Amino acid sequence: MKNIKDLTKKIIAFRDARDWKQFHNPKDLSLSLVLEATEVMEHFQWKNNDEMAKYAEEHKADIGEELADVLYWVLLMGHDLDIDVLDALEKKMKTNEDKYPVEKAKGRHTKYNKL
Amino acid sequence: MKNIKDLTKKIIAFRDARDWKQFHNPKDLSLSLVLEATEVMEHFQWKNNDEMAKYAEEHKADIGEELADVLYWVLLMGHDLDIDVLDALEKKMKTNEDKYPVEKAKGRHTKYNKL
Amino acid sequence: MKNIKDLTKKIIAFRDARDWKQFHNPKDLSLSLVLEATEVMEHFQWKNNDEMAKYAEEHKADIGEELADVLYWVLLMGHDLDIDVLDALEKKMKTNEDKYPVEKAKGRHTKYNKL
Amino acid sequence: MKNIKDLTKKIIAFRDARDWKQFHNPKDLSLSLVLEATEVMEHFQWKNNDEMAKYAEEHKADIGEELADVLYWVLLMGHDLDIDVLDALEKKMKTNEDKYPVEKAKGRHTKYNKL
Repeated sequence: MKNIKDLTKKIIAFRDARDWKQFHNPKDLSLSLVLEATEVMEHFQWKNNDEMAKYAEEHKADIGEELADVLYWVLLMGHDLDIDVLDALEKKMKTNEDKYPVEKAKGRHTKYNKL
Repeated sequence: MKNIKDLTKKIIAFRDARDWKQFHNPKDLSLSLVLEATEVMEHFQWKNNDEMAKYAEEHKADIGEELADVLYWVLLMGHDLDIDVLDALEKKMKTNEDKYPVEKAKGRHTKYNKL
Repeated sequence: MKNIKDLTKKIIAFRDARDWKQFHNPKDLSLSLVLEATEVMEHFQWKNNDEMAKYAEEHKADIGEELADVLYWVLLMGHDLDIDVLDALEKKMKTNEDKYPVEKAKGRHTKYNKL
Repeated sequence: MKNIKDLTKKIIAFRDARDWKQFHNPKDLSLSLVLEATEVMEHFQWKNNDEMAKYAEEHKADIGEELADVLYWVLLMGHDLDIDVLDALEKKMKTNEDKYPVEKAKGRHTKYNKL
């Protein structure tokens, strides 16, 4: 069964086999993160909600590949910068609770600094 | 101990408590993915490799928060679109093996379609 | 009266007065281009068409600032890379005519490679 | 001779001939802006300064096309939102002068809010 730890090991082994560490500074890694995130986004451009629902259903594998690409770079950057991203996410969820208290944020799409 | 499944549940509970599902179409979710990815990237702009190494060491928590934000949207989108992102990543790793054969890709930062 | 040529001169003079040329490699410049473009996009996130129309009317100056920021980096990159962007756009319009022939593209939001 | 006003007219005529106004809400337009900006950025990924200089010289037309694409959406958004982007840029240059006073910003790549 796959898990984050094993997938990260695979990603690093994949890189090392290709001798790509030499290119992997944080700036260029984060470019990949952005580029892959925009590829997810591109799937939904120009579509209204009905078109998106239909499209997402019919292109699940494609969209999954793009999300996987984003996750790939998250894990690789986490590895290189010695950041435990699951741990960071758990902590961030607590910050989010404070930034968006239920009583203020309920039913509103307002950014925390405008709430 | 945190894991992807539990974190995803937390994310969904956080959303539901705020009644935000109504705003969460895939297009707007993917915007968040992109916006958070660019926040990771912004940390490294204008810096050379030495400056980045120093900066990354000193701002581990900040960068971890941004990576966590990206992961947050990956997991939320995976949930909403009924995509198992770990499974998708495992599959994608196989695709990557084919796209970047070691003998061709070793030591080169060339995109697969130009190899 | 402002025009592209004079604005570009102003941008370069602004940079030179601050001795920033040393940081301006194309990669970091293009990061700015992306970061500013996402700031335009952020204005419209989570909003439906009616909310966007109202918002755009009420925040014309803010959105104008963000579009100006994007244009700033387009002009600066054009200058540094010795590219006449107006000329490039005129040429691109011809390419677009070929990529999206009226009879095929009319009323459809399909990418050229799928038409 | 091309100028911003004539190019904008061309862009709008191009759109109207294809009946694309119906898809052009600000959110989706800004997605294009971001997507084209990332295509500029992608040209420079993984390259060091020497590689970028060589690459930029050899791919001037390609990079010009991408910058033109960004400009295209800047002009189209400006048109639709009734924003004079040249005017907005002129105003922004004054704001920038205040945000980055020469004596503080000279030779430093620090963001204005950290100066």
